[in-house]
Order: sequence, then structure tokens, then C-alpha cells
Amino acid sequence: MNYGIVSYIIGYVLKFEAAFMLLPCVTAVVYQEPSGWAFVAAGLLCLLFGALLTRKKPENKIFYVKEGFVSVALSWIVLSIMGSLPFLFSGSITNVIDALFETVSGFTTTGASILPDVESLPKCILIWRSFTHWIGGMGVLVFMLSFLHMAGGSHMNLMKAESPGPSVSKLVPKVQSTAKILYGIYVVLTILEIFFLLAGGMPLFDTLCTSFGTAGTGGFGIKNDSMAGYSVYLQVVVTVFMILFGINFNAYYLILVGKFKQAFSIEEIRCYLGIIVVSTLVIAFNIQGICSGFGEALQQSAFQVGSIITTTGFATTDFNLWPEVSRTILVLLMFVGACAGSTGGGIKVSRLLILIKTINKEFHTLLHPRSVKKLKMDSTCVEHEVVRATNVFFIAYVLIFAFSVLLVGFDNHDLITNFTSVAATLNNIGPGLELAGPTQNFSLFSPGATLVLIFDMLAGRLELFPLLLLFVKDTWKRY
Amino acid sequence: MNYGIVSYIIGYVLKFEAAFMLLPCVTAVVYQEPSGWAFVAAGLLCLLFGALLTRKKPENKIFYVKEGFVSVALSWIVLSIMGSLPFLFSGSITNVIDALFETVSGFTTTGASILPDVESLPKCILIWRSFTHWIGGMGVLVFMLSFLHMAGGSHMNLMKAESPGPSVSKLVPKVQSTAKILYGIYVVLTILEIFFLLAGGMPLFDTLCTSFGTAGTGGFGIKNDSMAGYSVYLQVVVTVFMILFGINFNAYYLILVGKFKQAFSIEEIRCYLGIIVVSTLVIAFNIQGICSGFGEALQQSAFQVGSIITTTGFATTDFNLWPEVSRTILVLLMFVGACAGSTGGGIKVSRLLILIKTINKEFHTLLHPRSVKKLKMDSTCVEHEVVRATNVFFIAYVLIFAFSVLLVGFDNHDLITNFTSVAATLNNIGPGLELAGPTQNFSLFSPGATLVLIFDMLAGRLELFPLLLLFVKDTWKRY
Repeated sequence: MNYGIVSYIIGYVLKFEAAFMLLPCVTAVVYQEPSGWAFVAAGLLCLLFGALLTRKKPENKIFYVKEGFVSVALSWIVLSIMGSLPFLFSGSITNVIDALFETVSGFTTTGASILPDVESLPKCILIWRSFTHWIGGMGVLVFMLSFLHMAGGSHMNLMKAESPGPSVSKLVPKVQSTAKILYGIYVVLTILEIFFLLAGGMPLFDTLCTSFGTAGTGGFGIKNDSMAGYSVYLQVVVTVFMILFGINFNAYYLILVGKFKQAFSIEEIRCYLGIIVVSTLVIAFNIQGICSGFGEALQQSAFQVGSIITTTGFATTDFNLWPEVSRTILVLLMFVGACAGSTGGGIKVSRLLILIKTINKEFHTLLHPRSVKKLKMDSTCVEHEVVRATNVFFIAYVLIFAFSVLLVGFDNHDLITNFTSVAATLNNIGPGLELAGPTQNFSLFSPGATLVLIFDMLAGRLELFPLLLLFVKDTWKRY
Repeated sequence: MNYGIVSYIIGYVLKFEAAFMLLPCVTAVVYQEPSGWAFVAAGLLCLLFGALLTRKKPENKIFYVKEGFVSVALSWIVLSIMGSLPFLFSGSITNVIDALFETVSGFTTTGASILPDVESLPKCILIWRSFTHWIGGMGVLVFMLSFLHMAGGSHMNLMKAESPGPSVSKLVPKVQSTAKILYGIYVVLTILEIFFLLAGGMPLFDTLCTSFGTAGTGGFGIKNDSMAGYSVYLQVVVTVFMILFGINFNAYYLILVGKFKQAFSIEEIRCYLGIIVVSTLVIAFNIQGICSGFGEALQQSAFQVGSIITTTGFATTDFNLWPEVSRTILVLLMFVGACAGSTGGGIKVSRLLILIKTINKEFHTLLHPRSVKKLKMDSTCVEHEVVRATNVFFIAYVLIFAFSVLLVGFDNHDLITNFTSVAATLNNIGPGLELAGPTQNFSLFSPGATLVLIFDMLAGRLELFPLLLLFVKDTWKRY
């Protein structure tokens, strides 16, 4: 392990975090909230630690996959610890583990909260919660990469560790330029959403928080009833943007450079949209009896389906009370997740496609033992390495899931609460069912169970291996 | 597809089934039950169809994996359809789908029942139910193989399709001899259990049914309270034998030929026993408050753990009422399953070991990108083909599971009932939780959901692909 470069990177991340805290500071000034000092203090601490860690440039430039994974995992942990300080300093949250949960939930774009009454919080705290979604959505190291220039294979290895999906595709040959383009699209889409929400009469502060939450597919609400109190127009705008942020950003790039045909023929996106349409229709038929008509059923269904599959987690209704089929579909969508290369979590549609194609290939092998069939996606062969990584991801995912449900079970809540709260955190969604349902919050869990869920959120956002690697002894061997 | 040979094999299976029906016929004579005629009629029908299908030997001897898979899958379906006739003829079950469910549950060694009151059934029906477990446990085609001699690769391909586990190991070079040895061990262990149960004062009829159910890891009870009414001694005997029948039969063969050290060092078995010990202890501590003492807690815990991990499904208590941790452990054990090469179902311990080792290998690859690490089990390298097959199995397994829970959800029972009833059928266990718990039965499901569960039982017992292949168009192409 190249300790020098890892701590250097963490130092830079802290400096960026200090910069991010300017937004809540400004908010505090605008609304004249004393809680703003909590951000000044936390920001200064970030700056101090950041300066200490980046005092001298590391001489050893070695940067393998291992360094990339460890840098990203540690950065996210440090980011979350420092990001939780304002909650504690301002007294919004008094328990250390709860504050950490809330911050990790923010950065990992989960959106699960331990706060029973968000409306009573200062605005600077609310915007910080939502802003962590926005930062975490596209990834803080990817953001850093678009500014910094670093040596060796560091860019690619950092991007590999932080970007969601089975494989990282560089849009352009240079990683740094790719990062810039991705963030560019991200910013433009966010501004577009703010614009559409403003047009519907939503107050500016609300539009910022909602758009940050949508863009990062996070889901922290600033109202106790999440999005239920907003007008149908605003709900529809959020529905559309949630789904847009769940799309592989490569598609937007292809559209930008005029390759429309290629953009619209991406298999993953077609499949993703297909799942959304089918699920929405089935649920709409299923719940129309408890809605005022098919139109409302369709709108409610589309919102919740979009919210869950993109792993955002906003809610316009208490879907915990829906009939069992609808609940089951939502639970399954929790696992499906959004597209790779989007800000969404979950297993990802492309991984599921690869897994399904693996089964198809098995049929082919059984029927024609001597012929070799290659696994194809978008008419190109999927590299063996990607298929293998997908399989390993899936295995680790299921095992972590099972183990987490067992550990959370020691709190003795019902199985559905445990099962769906693990699903909601590991997939970075937010609400689950029953006691972890959309009208509930995560304060019911013991500190032990909360730590398990914190682990799950980080594991889910970083796609398991960067975080898991921290627990392997060999990782820490000096060169 | 070589239709000739497939129908020839099915024909033979039917002749064997006719022979199997002699046992209930004899039972009916002994107890002078008129229901015996149902077996005479069904047996004659089996014989008739069997004779028709085996009229002439097939000329085309081609027998690939495909033919093996299709023969086995169709044989099991035909076996179940014909095996359900006595239930219908005798009037014990009046609904065709229910009768099929009961028979599939028997042959697949699931032990889930749609009958609310088994004690009212004639003894010949009861012994047929339990006997189907015994037949299905080791596999009817494996049984046939030890008698018949067939051409080409047929033996190996049939055995591959019917034997549980990621790879088929031949104990001796000839497949036929292997089948004989396996059945020999099976018969001896069954007789041993009968002996021990008789020694505890259990009536002969009960010992037969209980031993058949234990040996096949089936779990049909002949009492409405399953095993709860029997003495502690009898419960302990059943506990021990359930665990013994969940062990890889290779170990018994190694013991037989004097290779003790090798037998006791099999990784899968050590892991299997380790899981049993740890789970039993954790549950015992967890439930001691609701038992009369730690001793009783330990005994109850061991019975239920043994019953679930071996996928037998007998019960001595209503574990649905246990605290959440214990319930969760049992649900997880449902998926673990017994050892490969045993009569148990589930994912199998060896598959889980391979999956976990795959993750370990991934860590190694991440840390040392240039070195190649081979996956080892019992100090020998696991072939790439086995690892691949295990991955594919796991993927197909999870997808079928998810899809089944969704389909069963249309019945609008609660999620835990749906989830655990799919778990209990796909893993060939029997009881689940809540409405499908040990004191309940499966008659609550609609015909549609029942068909899904029938599919799951067959898919689970045949380890997915033989059954799935029936739904692939290419399978049915003539040569």
C-alpha cells in the first residue's frame, strides 16, 4: 500500500469538502441562522486536516487498483465523518452514530433518515443534507479528477472505484475530460430541473433541495411527508427527472455529439425504460381501487416506481399500505436499480442483463456443447473480465445482504422491516416497508444495527469491493 | 432431440413406478383398506403406458447432455402425474392441481402438504406419500441405472441431471457401480434409522414413514403435529439421522473403504457441521426464555436446525413463533441447504463454499493483479467449468426465486408468507413462515400460485437447468 498517495488524496478530498460547506454557510447568512457557525467550524476543521495531509507531495507515484479502491473507500468514510460534524455542532442530531448515519445516507444518496421531524430543522442543515446527495451522486473523487491532475494510473483507478456499473467507459480518451463532461451534463440537468420546478411555483429553496435530491438519486425530503404535499405538476416533473437521472450518462453524451441513433439503441436503457413502463402499469391497475381513478393511480404508480428503481426514495404516498403485488414489485425494483453510469444505485440494469445473458449462454452451451457463444451487449462482445466481475459482484452482494439481515435481526423487529431496511440501504434507496416504510424513519434501530446499515450504504454506493478491501489484511502491507 | 430414447427412458421409469406402488398395495392388504384399489389401478396404468413406450428399443443411440436433462425432467413430471392418481382415485384429494402438488412435493422431497388433516388418511396413502420421498431422495433414474444397462454416454448424462451438487463425482469408474454403491448406503442408513426408532417404541408403520421421510430429507408427517408428539429419544434419533442424510454420501463410501482421514477432512462436511453447531447454539440461547430450560432449548433448536438445513422439514415445535433472530437464521438456512451428493436440497454448502472462495480470489486479484490464484477445495483445484456452472446456477436460482415471489404475490398474502413459501418449495424444505408455517399447510394458495410452487419444487430438486431446458425452443429440434 502506498500510504503517502492515499493520505494525499484524502487531504484533497477534505479541502473540497470545506469548499462544499460554503453553500450551507451562505444559506445560513441568507436566512440569518445561528446554526451556520457549525458549518464554519466544520469547514475550518476540514481545511486544517486537509492542509496537514497535503503538506507535501508524495514521492512514490505507484498507484494500482488497490490504491484506487482504498483511497475512494477511506475518502468516503472521512468525508462522512467530517460531514456529520455540523449536525452535531448545531445540535440538530445529538447522537454520534445517528449523525454519521444521516451523513452517510446523504453522501451515498440513500436518503434514509433518522430524523422524525425534518421541518423543524434550520434551512442550512436541510440544504447540507440535500447537497451531500448531489456531491455523492456523481462522486466526489470524479469531481476532484476534473480539476486535479495526478500521475500514473491514478485517474482511471479512482474512477473505476467510484463509478457505478460493471465497467467504466471513458467517453473520451482522457479520463479527466470524461469527468468534466459527466459533471457538465450533471450540472445542466440539475439546472433544468430547478427551472421546471420554479415554473411550477415551488419556492427557490425547495427547488434547490429537491433538485439536489433528484439529481443524486438521493431522496432526503425537506417536508415530513416527502413530496406528497406538492402539486401534481411538481410531482410529475420530479418523476421525469428521477427517471432521467437514472439513465446511463453515456446516452446524454451521445446525444450531445449528435449520435442519436446510437443513444436510443442502448440495450440497458431500453430495458430500464421497459421495466419502468411495465411496473407502472401493473401497479396502477393493482392500486386503482384505492385511488380516485386510473389517472391518479398511474401518476402515483409512476412516481413510486421511478423513485424506487432509480433508488431516489422520494414518496408521494405511503406505498407500505399498497396491496401485496405492488409492494412486491417495489421490493424487486429496489434490487434492480438504475442504469450503470447514472447516479442511481442498486444492482444496475446492465448487470442484470449480463446475468440473464449468462443464463441464455448456458442454455446454448447445454444444447450445443461444442460451439462457443459470446456474450453480446449493444452488438459488441462483453469482455470475459466484465462478466466475471459481474458474477463476483452478484455473489458478494447476496452474501452481504443475507448477513446484514441476520445482524439487523438481533434488534427483533419483524422480518419485512429488517429485509427491506437492508434492501433500502444496500441499494441506496431510503425507505423500505413496515417500520422502515416511507412514513417512518430509521431511528428505531439500535446502534449496532445502525452501524450495519451504515456499512451497507457505503458498500452499496462504492459497489462493495472498495469497502470490502479495507477488511483484508494484505491490503495494508507496505511496499 | 432424440425423441426415441427419451420416451424409451420415460417408459422404463413408469414400469419402475408401477413396481413402487406395490408397497402401498401391500400396506392396504395388511390394514384391509379399500383405498388399495386406487394403487392397483394407478399401477396398471403405469405398466400399460410403460409397456407402450418401451415396446421397441430405440435405434438412434445418440445421448448428449441435452437428452439427459430432458429425460430426467420429463420423467419427473410423468412420475408426478401418475403418482398423483392414487390420491384422486381414492378420493383423498379431489382437486387435480392439489393432488399434483402433493405428489411433486413428495418426489422432490419437499414435504409441503395441502392436506389439513393427515391423520384421517388411509395408511396406504400415508405410506405412499412418505415412500415418494424415499424414491425421490436419491433419484429414480439413478435407481434405474443401477439395474439397467444403457448405451453411450447416457448413464453419466442422466446422473449429471439428477444428482444434486455442482459436480458429479463417480466413486468408482463405472457409473452403474457408483449408483449401486450409493443406493446401498442409502438402504443401510434407512434400515439403521428404522431400527433405532423401533428401539424407542415407535410403531413399525410410523418408523417406516418417518425413516422414508428422513432418508429422502422429505418431511411429510403422518401426524398433524409432525414430530411434536413423539418422545425426546425419538426426536433426537430423527435429528441425528436428518443430519446424517444431509452429508455428502462420498464420505460414507470413503469410510466404507477405510479412508477415514480423507472422509473426515472433506471441507464441505466440516463447514456443514460447523453451520449446524453455530446455528443451534445461537438459536438455543435466543429461545431459552420460551423453553423449560437450556436443555430443551438446545434439543428443539438442534431438531429445527437439522430439519431446515437438510431441507427435511419435520417440526417438533411451531418455530414461526420464535423470536426474529431465530426465524431469520432458519430462513437463511433454508437457502444454505445440505451437502452436495446427499439427498438434501437448497443451494448446497459446497456451492456456497465455491462462491465464497470466488470472492476471496477476487480480493487476491485486486491486490496482486499479475498473479494467478486457483480456487481450491479439499486441496485440489476446482475446475473452471465447475466454478462457472456454480455461478450460473446461483444467478438462475436468484432470478427464479424473485420471479416466483412476484407471481405468488398475486394471491395477496403477506410478503413473508410468499417469500418463505417460495423458499420452502424451491429449496425442497416444506414449511415456511406465517401462513405457510409448520402448523399451517399450503392449501391457502390459488391454483395459479400452486402451479408456480410446483414448478419451484421441480426446479429445486432437479437443480434448475434440466427443467428450464424444457422451455427453450431449440431443445425440441429433431436431429
